[in-house]
Amino acid sequence: MTRPTASIVTVGSELTEGLRLDTNTREIAFALSTSGYHVLETASVGDHTEILADVLARLSARDALVVVTGGLGPTHDDITREAASQALRRPLLRAPELVELLLPATRRHSDERAMEQVLRQAELLEGADVILPVTGTAPGQFVATPAGLLVLLPGPPAEMRPMLSRLVTDIAPGPSRASVRELGCVGLTESDAQVRATAALSAHPGVAFTVLASPGDVHILLLDDGAGERALDAAAEAVTVALGARIYSTDGSTLAEAVVRSAIERGITLGLAESCTGGLVAARLTDVPGSSATFLGGVVAYSNGAKFALLGVSTETLARHGAVSAETAEEMAAGARTALGADIAVAVTGVAGPSGGSPDKPVGLVWFGLATASGTTSFSRGIPGDRAAVRIRAASTALDTLRREVLGL
Amino acid sequence: MTRPTASIVTVGSELTEGLRLDTNTREIAFALSTSGYHVLETASVGDHTEILADVLARLSARDALVVVTGGLGPTHDDITREAASQALRRPLLRAPELVELLLPATRRHSDERAMEQVLRQAELLEGADVILPVTGTAPGQFVATPAGLLVLLPGPPAEMRPMLSRLVTDIAPGPSRASVRELGCVGLTESDAQVRATAALSAHPGVAFTVLASPGDVHILLLDDGAGERALDAAAEAVTVALGARIYSTDGSTLAEAVVRSAIERGITLGLAESCTGGLVAARLTDVPGSSATFLGGVVAYSNGAKFALLGVSTETLARHGAVSAETAEEMAAGARTALGADIAVAVTGVAGPSGGSPDKPVGLVWFGLATASGTTSFSRGIPGDRAAVRIRAASTALDTLRREVLGL
Repeated sequence: MTRPTASIVTVGSELTEGLRLDTNTREIAFALSTSGYHVLETASVGDHTEILADVLARLSARDALVVVTGGLGPTHDDITREAASQALRRPLLRAPELVELLLPATRRHSDERAMEQVLRQAELLEGADVILPVTGTAPGQFVATPAGLLVLLPGPPAEMRPMLSRLVTDIAPGPSRASVRELGCVGLTESDAQVRATAALSAHPGVAFTVLASPGDVHILLLDDGAGERALDAAAEAVTVALGARIYSTDGSTLAEAVVRSAIERGITLGLAESCTGGLVAARLTDVPGSSATFLGGVVAYSNGAKFALLGVSTETLARHGAVSAETAEEMAAGARTALGADIAVAVTGVAGPSGGSPDKPVGLVWFGLATASGTTSFSRGIPGDRAAVRIRAASTALDTLRREVLGL
Repeated sequence: MTRPTASIVTVGSELTEGLRLDTNTREIAFALSTSGYHVLETASVGDHTEILADVLARLSARDALVVVTGGLGPTHDDITREAASQALRRPLLRAPELVELLLPATRRHSDERAMEQVLRQAELLEGADVILPVTGTAPGQFVATPAGLLVLLPGPPAEMRPMLSRLVTDIAPGPSRASVRELGCVGLTESDAQVRATAALSAHPGVAFTVLASPGDVHILLLDDGAGERALDAAAEAVTVALGARIYSTDGSTLAEAVVRSAIERGITLGLAESCTGGLVAARLTDVPGSSATFLGGVVAYSNGAKFALLGVSTETLARHGAVSAETAEEMAAGARTALGADIAVAVTGVAGPSGGSPDKPVGLVWFGLATASGTTSFSRGIPGDRAAVRIRAASTALDTLRREVLGL
């Protein structure tokens, strides 16, 4: 199956000058992709009629659907109608029904120039149909192009959204609602995930995949490329088998959500002792609604004094082995477990950098402690990256340690 | 003055399919605009070599600077090098110095295919210069084009940023650093900031401004629109006077950085007791390198048991007033201050939602406690938004409370 192609254009110099983050493109791209369109490219163009007209002419000649947002308002910066008119060689005509719709808005203005500006929004490309606004004043419109349809929507998300919804349900619904399976993995690199998924999917034609990685988190997205729902499930199963316990979710939930859900299911309570992650692990757990049913609390023991006073790490251990050591990590975990009365506690202590490293204990060295009813254990990791990356990856390892202990993996 | 033109291309099907929000474009656009470039358009292209090659050929023929991010990794989806090679008709050559740089990364892999994948990142366009990675493994590169320069940067923001910084300072600095003053504010809404800045700037022609807001943080950017440096300073001063103690920085530093710097300067130590923010305040403080010189630690007292055991909040207070109350907030702050031996401690306890609200204590109600050598105080806020927004805004208020206490505001 070849999917119809689409493209998205957002208009406004505030986007090309980096003064505003464009969130419309992602929303529209997701709506079109899941409706079965193949979005080939997206663009943002400043307030330059000629450049926008060129972009629209090029995309309209190729793609079955071109969706434009922004530049439909009343001011001189609002160039989208003119650019579309040039691109498609269709004149702009003032639509009587839109003039009527906009009259209340013109009455807010005293001078004729401002009233005339408001009425620019009543201009339709010859042959276009109106998409009536639910909110705001700027109407949308759509018109035939050499390759399909050009759609103009207003830029404010609250005005754009209801029109986008009409677009993918009524006006240009797309061939199918595409299926996606999302697998969350932890404890392997992006290229590891790529290699393993490629191998696991070699026997699953018609399933495409992409790997999305951020520090401490890898997601494998399986996309239906013609194989159908059941084949997609089989492919997800194959990848899950290949990656084993590294897969923490198959439903789009986060690692922290997986930890919270499995701990609640098993009636296990959790505690934390954090040094180099400085509260990041606790923040990720408590980001999950309902986490209070399993997470009792944690100690951010940034100073040695806090490790001693709040977690009972002995001054001798700190003096002899240092704050970044197996011994300190285990005493931190045991201390948090006792102080909080938790079933399981994990401790993190390491050198996040940029300073504080030594030949013995370089930046990136992180010790993890685990305390349970059966005792304490520890392990270390050498984590690559800058301060932020070391902290995020160490937090993911701590969450994964909780998950594996809860699930008995 | 005609500014040199620029364009930005981000690569990846996760962007055109709407699976990820592109934040690189805004960052790069801002850096280029403020360096004196005129960014005409930006584009995102999926993992299609031909389409990307077409886009790069078109932009490279027109713009003095074309910056591409993403698609430089090791996997088969990483097509940027090949597309640039086609667009500019320059072959790809394996650079020996990059092979050497990447060898440690190949050793993590056992099979030859994964090792070979890693080494794809050693490929340079003929005639290109390398931009060495500070973090991660993917090197950047830049090469001459018909109209100027094509620059390839890795997609992960942490890897892209240091290279972008080198780009606008050394490699292609742009004709002028357009002047910008950035004022960080806390404790007011985006539209408040808009209204107050408009009033403050009415007597400052030639200075444009824009307000960038995210939950718990508002930035006012003043842009030189012909007025010159001294007028820009005067305008910044006028806005600072109008907003007073709400301005926490005038040099682009974050609220947490402002807290850490001012506390270190004054030799004041800080402690925390967090309930609904669950470690977010500690995570933001410890994100600042060197924060260990002032931040001793904190307690994430998510359960009532933890508030009692670690902070000494009395069971009577919890029973009579509840966990979300002035009394509990003050006892939490006092308990943290004592346990940690800190000069100042702030406590946060509230209803983040989505559940847990009551007519008496609705979702969004947050109590803050402050303990210092002179005693304890408390105040509450009704914070709008969903769970994530309530937590982030409450964390900002806690940081602002520390800042004001440290500075005596």
